Amino acid sequence: MHFISEQRLDDGVLEREFTLGEIPGTLWTPESAAPLPLVLMSHNNGLPKADPRMVARARYTAARGYAVASIDAAGCGDRPRSAADERARAELRRAMQAGEPVDEIFESFIGPLVENAVPEWRATLDALLELPGIGGPVGYSGGWTALGIRLAVAEPRIAAAGFFAGGFVPRAQREEARQVTIPLLLLLQWDDEGNPRQRALDLFEAFGSKEKTLHANLGGHTGTPWFELEDGCRFLDRHLK
Amino acid sequence: MHFISEQRLDDGVLEREFTLGEIPGTLWTPESAAPLPLVLMSHNNGLPKADPRMVARARYTAARGYAVASIDAAGCGDRPRSAADERARAELRRAMQAGEPVDEIFESFIGPLVENAVPEWRATLDALLELPGIGGPVGYSGGWTALGIRLAVAEPRIAAAGFFAGGFVPRAQREEARQVTIPLLLLLQWDDEGNPRQRALDLFEAFGSKEKTLHANLGGHTGTPWFELEDGCRFLDRHLK
Repeated sequence: MHFISEQRLDDGVLEREFTLGEIPGTLWTPESAAPLPLVLMSHNNGLPKADPRMVARARYTAARGYAVASIDAAGCGDRPRSAADERARAELRRAMQAGEPVDEIFESFIGPLVENAVPEWRATLDALLELPGIGGPVGYSGGWTALGIRLAVAEPRIAAAGFFAGGFVPRAQREEARQVTIPLLLLLQWDDEGNPRQRALDLFEAFGSKEKTLHANLGGHTGTPWFELEDGCRFLDRHLK
Repeated sequence: MHFISEQRLDDGVLEREFTLGEIPGTLWTPESAAPLPLVLMSHNNGLPKADPRMVARARYTAARGYAVASIDAAGCGDRPRSAADERARAELRRAMQAGEPVDEIFESFIGPLVENAVPEWRATLDALLELPGIGGPVGYSGGWTALGIRLAVAEPRIAAAGFFAGGFVPRAQREEARQVTIPLLLLLQWDDEGNPRQRALDLFEAFGSKEKTLHANLGGHTGTPWFELEDGCRFLDRHLK
């Protein structure tokens, strides 16, 4: 893991860009004498890790006493896109504009993206836990729910997870949701244009966790109220501190 | 309003029993130099206001900086029961033991109970707001959701409400839910034996409020996790402080 830039932000949080092989990432850490619990924070895979809303979420969470890290998935954010990526994205746009069903396109596009992202996140986790000042335990907080499900099943170091029920979750992750047994907080926007409500409720039902909480708020995809950011941190506090 | 007993509790909260005409009530107040916002706290109408879980909720909320008041409805708790009350309760028990549908029995029993409770709660509110040290604004926090809906529609002084989706809500209140426009927090136990989940989700959908949040947790009727008590106070803090 190589740090390539750093800046100290107004709120005292240190923001560092890093690379791990081909993977570009960002790490936010507050000043702390004690080892920090770590939060892996993802975003919708179509957005860069520099997406302002995710950065705001990361900085807020760091200021509450967490090391927070995010990376871009292959073909996303700052990373080069293959011709196959471009074709898949173009086909998705075309189908959406034409009002055609997009589930199968999502399935074939996002399914492999999730599979390929998991070893990268695990390698990043290994590297982060070797840094001085980061001591675990580890949580996941993410807009990319499908990745979170896959990671929660594959990675025993993840102790709690907050998911945003707002995007397409491939069949494989809908099925393995029952294997997720860590404490969960699932956020749902009640009128999310792109996310059928019943599918989100079915996902909540499917999780195997004994402690799982659903927070549903009125409004569309991007309308999550600010207090959910604080609630999300309080959920992490209960399980990671 | 006549105070008939008082005791200072361990947490510094003053607990006072009162009567207002025939109505028996309890008021919990913390020590405070500034006027306190007021929370009307109800319980499932079949339980007394001395129900230990409700008292714990009331004391916790008072210690967080609220005047909290509860009264017993006619025929409930410490109040005398009429022969008609006793017949209705006996019929309800019989039907439940026989596995018969109980919706219509609930309807004819609880419908009038809600109607009759409203003027008593409003009279109590009038009297409470005349006490020194209680300054409003006013919130409602209650296990008796049907009463809360009726009060939220009838009583413009109520600025925010937390409901527990765990009991029978008469048709009249299900219909007037759309007239409720104050900020709401609805608590749902996902596996509540006595409360069909879809009915609770339909109720959440029906409320007319622009700001409404649903918190659903795994488990049965009495399994609400302790952190929802704190979340409920934080909801009140956002709207009453």
